[in-house]
Amino acid sequence: MEKLEYAQEGRTELGALGEFALIDRLTDEFECKNKTTIKGVGDDCAVLGKGKTKTVVTTDTMVEGVHFDMMYTPLKHLGYKAVAMSLSDICAMNATPRQILVSIAVSNRYSVEALEDLYAGIRLCCDRYDVDLVGGDTTTSRAGMMINVTAIGEVTEEAIAYRSGAKMHDLICVSGDLGSAYAGLLILEREKVTYQADPNFKPDLESYDYVLERFLKPEPRADIVKLLAEKEIVPTSMIDVSDGLASELLHICKQSHCGCEVYEDRIPIDYQTTRVCSEMSQNMLPVSCALNGGEDYELLFTISQKDYEKIKDNEEIHIIGHITEEGAPAVMVTPQNTTITLQAQGWTAHE
Amino acid sequence: MEKLEYAQEGRTELGALGEFALIDRLTDEFECKNKTTIKGVGDDCAVLGKGKTKTVVTTDTMVEGVHFDMMYTPLKHLGYKAVAMSLSDICAMNATPRQILVSIAVSNRYSVEALEDLYAGIRLCCDRYDVDLVGGDTTTSRAGMMINVTAIGEVTEEAIAYRSGAKMHDLICVSGDLGSAYAGLLILEREKVTYQADPNFKPDLESYDYVLERFLKPEPRADIVKLLAEKEIVPTSMIDVSDGLASELLHICKQSHCGCEVYEDRIPIDYQTTRVCSEMSQNMLPVSCALNGGEDYELLFTISQKDYEKIKDNEEIHIIGHITEEGAPAVMVTPQNTTITLQAQGWTAHE
Repeated sequence: MEKLEYAQEGRTELGALGEFALIDRLTDEFECKNKTTIKGVGDDCAVLGKGKTKTVVTTDTMVEGVHFDMMYTPLKHLGYKAVAMSLSDICAMNATPRQILVSIAVSNRYSVEALEDLYAGIRLCCDRYDVDLVGGDTTTSRAGMMINVTAIGEVTEEAIAYRSGAKMHDLICVSGDLGSAYAGLLILEREKVTYQADPNFKPDLESYDYVLERFLKPEPRADIVKLLAEKEIVPTSMIDVSDGLASELLHICKQSHCGCEVYEDRIPIDYQTTRVCSEMSQNMLPVSCALNGGEDYELLFTISQKDYEKIKDNEEIHIIGHITEEGAPAVMVTPQNTTITLQAQGWTAHE
Repeated sequence: MEKLEYAQEGRTELGALGEFALIDRLTDEFECKNKTTIKGVGDDCAVLGKGKTKTVVTTDTMVEGVHFDMMYTPLKHLGYKAVAMSLSDICAMNATPRQILVSIAVSNRYSVEALEDLYAGIRLCCDRYDVDLVGGDTTTSRAGMMINVTAIGEVTEEAIAYRSGAKMHDLICVSGDLGSAYAGLLILEREKVTYQADPNFKPDLESYDYVLERFLKPEPRADIVKLLAEKEIVPTSMIDVSDGLASELLHICKQSHCGCEVYEDRIPIDYQTTRVCSEMSQNMLPVSCALNGGEDYELLFTISQKDYEKIKDNEEIHIIGHITEEGAPAVMVTPQNTTITLQAQGWTAHE
């Protein structure tokens, strides 16, 4: 019998590379050869098809204990969120979601009734966004639960928004507010610790309703895609905010070969996010939640300056900065006029 | 904090329903509303699209310890097999595979080099079947490895083969041979037990090369799809053999509202499969491997009698029986002329 373990020598730990570097390394030698493959790995979705209407496809996995904690995640919310996350990737191509396929792997710890709750959440999100469940796979796992959602959408060729199209002087826009999902997570983690110490503890979560909903039941911004179409705006670039504003801005700058400048006081932050931060022991800054928190599932996009008038009065869209020249860094300017270089996780001041 | 565990009372264990009954129960209340959804849950793939060329999509998950055993599964083979399984579902719609998306969840036990081996196998299968890797997701798991492959293919409207189109008197055909993948698994499981008892044991696997390859590195039958197109045959129904011939015949009968009659001595079984069965202690019948073994990834399909002449001399296609009227059972006739009713797992003699 062959020995299939991998020797310690010459072993590179997964943690030694970041997620994006790992994906680059694993997919580096793959080439796309089919003429129906318009865009492969490297954006929110793959873009496929022959005609003027393109198909966009994305897949996302959530693993128990890594992406969700059953201690504070109702299964109905989990089902809703798993679908919402994938639909958000469809929206990030400026596309309309149409279908999903859902694969789950679950241990015997879960009952049929528990899975029915999960699927009730999946159905709720499908109904809300007019999306059809068209397939999937149900299997056993040795431990915990895993959910994979593949989402499919459509978009006309002219309307596709890649990460790579931002041009110098374009305006940087973001929908909704940022950091609130992370604030919700902070509250849930805090209450979990208290509950574990005292199972009779009854947390008062009511005053955190907004941030909790943002974390537990996010909404993909299909309304923004619709609004942009109505206003006849095609974003020059777009991405959804799943890993935090800093990381997403860096993706756009890298793929569009440009720099960017955003203004700290323009970043939309809800008052409940600010309040949660002030309650946290380690002096958490609300802007840190926005930059590095993630899971907001808002849309970050750039538009040409000529489109400014069309959206300037929209309350759901915030202009937070502009694109700068190739070779320039991605920076945030504070109200005190300090320039901070953005990093994918965390950020450091320079000069 | 809400208590999210599910009460024991009123709890239905997952094992109480079969996989297919569970999927039915979970997806029962979903309705397809998009006009681009041609076929949702219930076939090898979903069928999508507006034009004459349709898109077919399928998703499949493999979980370590459930679908594969790292003790005898080289990662390169695992990558190849995960892709091959999904492409087989595309072929089962009489479609041509074009793209895949691969999501993996892995624990820290795996090194970057191990994942490179996995992706080398994925690439080998992509190259062999002219398929593009266009997306995916790489994430952490708390234990073991999970691989999800979504495959996308295309097929013209007239050529789509559903499970539901078989008509009375149609001929039942199967490609390649059946039961050999299961025979390969039996050998690997036997050698594993011996190896665990004596780690110095060096198994001789050479004489089992065919059945081992069938289990570890199956091939989707894209060649059969191509051949049928060349011969201008559109199967009246089609499915791939992933769960064993009996289970697949029952799917076709249920969805086509018909019965079937197959002849035991027509079922193609390789001599190595027969030899492995004779070596096994519990008097294993080769036909049991074919009926209930699964993982052969051959194509099972029905054709109209008028197409008989076009394929009768093809060595890769075996005519094993015919479709009978609605309400008739799915049966196998033995060489002794005994009629056996087929069941999804196992089978019982009647009369």
